[in-house]
Amino acid sequence: MHVMKTLCATLTVVLGLATVNVAAGQDVLPSWREGASKQAIIEFVQQVTNPNSSAFVPPKERIAVFDNDGTLWSEQPFYFQLAFALDRVKMLAPQHPEWKTQQPFKAVLENDIKALGASGEKGLAQLVMATHAGMTTTAFEQIVREWIQKAVHPRFHRPYTSVVYQPMLELLTYLREQGFKTYIVSGGGIEFMRPWAEAVYGIPPEQVIGSSFKTQLEMRDGEPVLVRLPEIDFINDKAGKPVGIYKFIGRRPIAAFGNSDGDLQMLQWTAAGKGPRFMMLIHHTDGEREWAYDRQSHIGRLDKALDEAQSRGWTIVDMKKDWQVIYPFQQ
Amino acid sequence: MHVMKTLCATLTVVLGLATVNVAAGQDVLPSWREGASKQAIIEFVQQVTNPNSSAFVPPKERIAVFDNDGTLWSEQPFYFQLAFALDRVKMLAPQHPEWKTQQPFKAVLENDIKALGASGEKGLAQLVMATHAGMTTTAFEQIVREWIQKAVHPRFHRPYTSVVYQPMLELLTYLREQGFKTYIVSGGGIEFMRPWAEAVYGIPPEQVIGSSFKTQLEMRDGEPVLVRLPEIDFINDKAGKPVGIYKFIGRRPIAAFGNSDGDLQMLQWTAAGKGPRFMMLIHHTDGEREWAYDRQSHIGRLDKALDEAQSRGWTIVDMKKDWQVIYPFQQ
Repeated sequence: MHVMKTLCATLTVVLGLATVNVAAGQDVLPSWREGASKQAIIEFVQQVTNPNSSAFVPPKERIAVFDNDGTLWSEQPFYFQLAFALDRVKMLAPQHPEWKTQQPFKAVLENDIKALGASGEKGLAQLVMATHAGMTTTAFEQIVREWIQKAVHPRFHRPYTSVVYQPMLELLTYLREQGFKTYIVSGGGIEFMRPWAEAVYGIPPEQVIGSSFKTQLEMRDGEPVLVRLPEIDFINDKAGKPVGIYKFIGRRPIAAFGNSDGDLQMLQWTAAGKGPRFMMLIHHTDGEREWAYDRQSHIGRLDKALDEAQSRGWTIVDMKKDWQVIYPFQQ
Repeated sequence: MHVMKTLCATLTVVLGLATVNVAAGQDVLPSWREGASKQAIIEFVQQVTNPNSSAFVPPKERIAVFDNDGTLWSEQPFYFQLAFALDRVKMLAPQHPEWKTQQPFKAVLENDIKALGASGEKGLAQLVMATHAGMTTTAFEQIVREWIQKAVHPRFHRPYTSVVYQPMLELLTYLREQGFKTYIVSGGGIEFMRPWAEAVYGIPPEQVIGSSFKTQLEMRDGEPVLVRLPEIDFINDKAGKPVGIYKFIGRRPIAAFGNSDGDLQMLQWTAAGKGPRFMMLIHHTDGEREWAYDRQSHIGRLDKALDEAQSRGWTIVDMKKDWQVIYPFQQ
């Protein structure tokens, strides 16, 4: 292996210039229209990967963190994980006859959006507990895999994993090719994302950080299994995002990508590090091809973070203007 | 980059045979004496890395987890992290005049081992809280870095980071060269290990899993910082090890290395996966070059795990017989 590594390292040096030229001839972000956002990304990457630049960052410190909902895939008409929970209530209903009369389950079974909304955060928590806990981790992974294969987005009538942003897929690939380690840092459930994040985003399970349930080791039929308890372990949102990043990665990222006030602290904490930094917000401005929402939205509200991005000069992506294509299926 | 990757991939295939021959000619584990333990390691690795074997495991699933205390470095005459806590009490004492009369601090300041022992787990918890919490994560990292550079082991009069096992360093390198991702999974503090694990073991911070304190995001002088709270977040020991592994990695390891009953559940959980598995216990049998202890020891007790390893045919390393060299400085 040493021989191979040395040989490849040598070739990398020898072919370095040629590689850069190939990259320069290609458009590494073809779904991004020419403009300030695209330019800012490329300039940052060129700066931190140039060994002759004072802003050079060694590969092991090239950590880039991405929110998921509204940053890598859509989050309308409501979070996709909520769609999973609602589908799961309907699937489990035959085993729970009491749900026919019990809120918030009754509302879900009757598609009564108003009553569901009225159940508030408490109702939501009940739905999440009833659908996300009580089984082994292996069983839950299987449940997620099956759902994600079959479920379709209500507007686009395609799998939810198709309702991802083509420009962000290109950005993930570009960063990884430039030696970055890409992480998801989401308020969503860690075990809801891990089963498909590698196939969809090229991000392996160990690079997915999210909110989690407590698990407990139990012996079942003489085999150790991890059981998901109906108890929240960690909420990886807002001020929890830097906590989650530090816990899992132990390094401060040099680049952070989000779309809502839930990402503000992650961007602030990334920005507070020494050396070159890149902070980006995706602004949902395309009511036609995607959705247009910001300061008043219940889902993915972008208000304080938008003010701060503007005042601090962080990159703000205008989806409508900056993105040639939104989804892979539109190419 | 694509060009380079393809070229290197091609070369890897073309040179595959030559690489294996070079490896066969070299001793990849020179500090391991020929015998069953060394043979078991090499056979396992050859099996899972051979694309023609039915036991082949793709690189991304080649996760190997290592306990730290007693598995990668020594843990006698007491855990090195306890030495850190005791040194830190002495350093902080001038700011805490009350410690002169308050146990367990008084015992530490007077080097009264008996009184320290009498303070029990409660006393230990007090020491840990007083020395590991209350500062920012950045400040704590700096404290650990300074201590690990200066502190010396009482028996070997060398830095604690020299009191690591040469055969295990070779094993870590060998596994990584064979496409494994190596993780530390320790009962010790995650932030106590991360500042030096990369330099000593080649294991980056994001591959260190350990026990942790809660942290909280605060604004100080207009900058976000993470503050270590005097509250345990997670104990990564015994049944906590599979929980920690699943939380951080999201995959089951295919190889697990430990030395005490605290590692039993990690080995059991690793063993319970499908396909080829490798479970190893380090048995401290060398009272001369290191220490000899097992079933009766307060530190690193190896009792139930030893029985289980014997009955299930897990590899048990006999330090005295199997290791040519214990520490790098003895070479």
